[in-house]
Amino acid sequence: MTQVIRTAAELRDKVAAWKRSGMLVGVVPTMGALHDGHLSLARAAREQSDRVIVTVFVNPMQFNNASDLDKYPRDEAKDLALLEAEGVDVLFAPGVDEVYPDGFATTVSIKGITEPLEGAFRPGHFDGVATVCSKLFGMTQAGRAFFGEKDWQQLQVVQRLVRDLNIPTRIIGCPTIREEDGLAMSSRNVRLTEAEREVAPRLHEIMQLAAAEIRDGVSAQIALTNAEAALLEAGFREIEYLELRTVDGLRPAEDLSEPARMLVALWLGDVRLIDNIAV
Amino acid sequence: MTQVIRTAAELRDKVAAWKRSGMLVGVVPTMGALHDGHLSLARAAREQSDRVIVTVFVNPMQFNNASDLDKYPRDEAKDLALLEAEGVDVLFAPGVDEVYPDGFATTVSIKGITEPLEGAFRPGHFDGVATVCSKLFGMTQAGRAFFGEKDWQQLQVVQRLVRDLNIPTRIIGCPTIREEDGLAMSSRNVRLTEAEREVAPRLHEIMQLAAAEIRDGVSAQIALTNAEAALLEAGFREIEYLELRTVDGLRPAEDLSEPARMLVALWLGDVRLIDNIAV
Repeated sequence: MTQVIRTAAELRDKVAAWKRSGMLVGVVPTMGALHDGHLSLARAAREQSDRVIVTVFVNPMQFNNASDLDKYPRDEAKDLALLEAEGVDVLFAPGVDEVYPDGFATTVSIKGITEPLEGAFRPGHFDGVATVCSKLFGMTQAGRAFFGEKDWQQLQVVQRLVRDLNIPTRIIGCPTIREEDGLAMSSRNVRLTEAEREVAPRLHEIMQLAAAEIRDGVSAQIALTNAEAALLEAGFREIEYLELRTVDGLRPAEDLSEPARMLVALWLGDVRLIDNIAV
Repeated sequence: MTQVIRTAAELRDKVAAWKRSGMLVGVVPTMGALHDGHLSLARAAREQSDRVIVTVFVNPMQFNNASDLDKYPRDEAKDLALLEAEGVDVLFAPGVDEVYPDGFATTVSIKGITEPLEGAFRPGHFDGVATVCSKLFGMTQAGRAFFGEKDWQQLQVVQRLVRDLNIPTRIIGCPTIREEDGLAMSSRNVRLTEAEREVAPRLHEIMQLAAAEIRDGVSAQIALTNAEAALLEAGFREIEYLELRTVDGLRPAEDLSEPARMLVALWLGDVRLIDNIAV
């Protein structure tokens, strides 16, 4: 039976009782509209913790675009049913006023790793992520927090956050979960039209091809330029970035002399998609 | 026997052992050069916690003035002897590289309450305070943290910080400790010349007089203007602020229709002094 909790005070009491029995708490921070990607995180949390909290909070502070916030899908009843089936202990679903009450005035900002990629196209986004994660780690007192690799840069940002502020929560990255056709699962995918949904898997396919070329010795610049052309040809638009970056620190990478990752953000119709793969 | 610990890792192990026995940890964050004010905080921590950590870290991030940082008094051997005598369990004295290692990139900023008074005269100061306090609360896992009312605005900032980031540390404010002649204890007082040290207690005396006038119905503006003249006459210079502010939110106050506090920052020779009193 998954208990729904809406206030930080009630959550604190729940967690305090667990902690007195020496239990390790795992948390999966989400924005709801749960899919198999989220559920894989809940499963990892169950395996690696004594008690599992899934948080569902569509965090206004991390949206740089009001329409994206408005359109963000929400379905708590379905989310709860899915979490019940996974044996999650608590669904923590606070309202905006509970997370940001009157007088709230604090921002956690991270330099460097937040600046390229998503940071360049979504001003303020990572301030919102770092601030709400600080709060969720404080509220849940979790020993472990589980994040998907789909949001690769976010995972690095949250790692940096807990290291820099000495937050006693260990961050665990979990592999991206994909549809059978390769499309990375995302809550925003439900907003794709049927026609767009047919195009969407080409993203992963074209990225894999480019990655294979780079591994075969083609220069990253050429492989990525070809991939951009193929993406536009396939029906994607406005490629915000398609880049090779070092795994360590997300610095621009020209080749595979250091472990690297290929990251993309682009649009398909009215939906912004992001993805990334190892190269 | 006070144990000296210099690394976050060693402190974490120590604290984890205490926590497993259900102990409540109290922390007193300081910049060393300990005086009776600090020791009163250590005593409060002893009374209200099972184990006490005093941190000594001259935090470069909160100094807006390099010369003030250079001249800040340091005497760890004496500090340790004083803490031994108070039965403090751990003196946590990390180096700068331990607190801000390579790659450190995070800042905690608080709007509003940080902006007037000290915030206006020491740009960046409260970012440094909020960031290092977040770190110290994370490192010590303290259930309670003890701060002096002498740094009244800092106390409000730290209260805001733990509320906003849901840090599970309760902040306890403790009264300002004064010399017999009324001078608020401060590590910087040792930098006063003998002649300045004779002038210094006039600050508290003149503030008390102005507070009495305001309580007697004299307008705050007149009482404070007279007090400024008396301070300059006494030998203080460069009064950065001498203001009546609401206790709640540190908003400008013209009278006592809300609980208010009088706060001052000024210079005596080369030493910047701050103080505050209830009105």
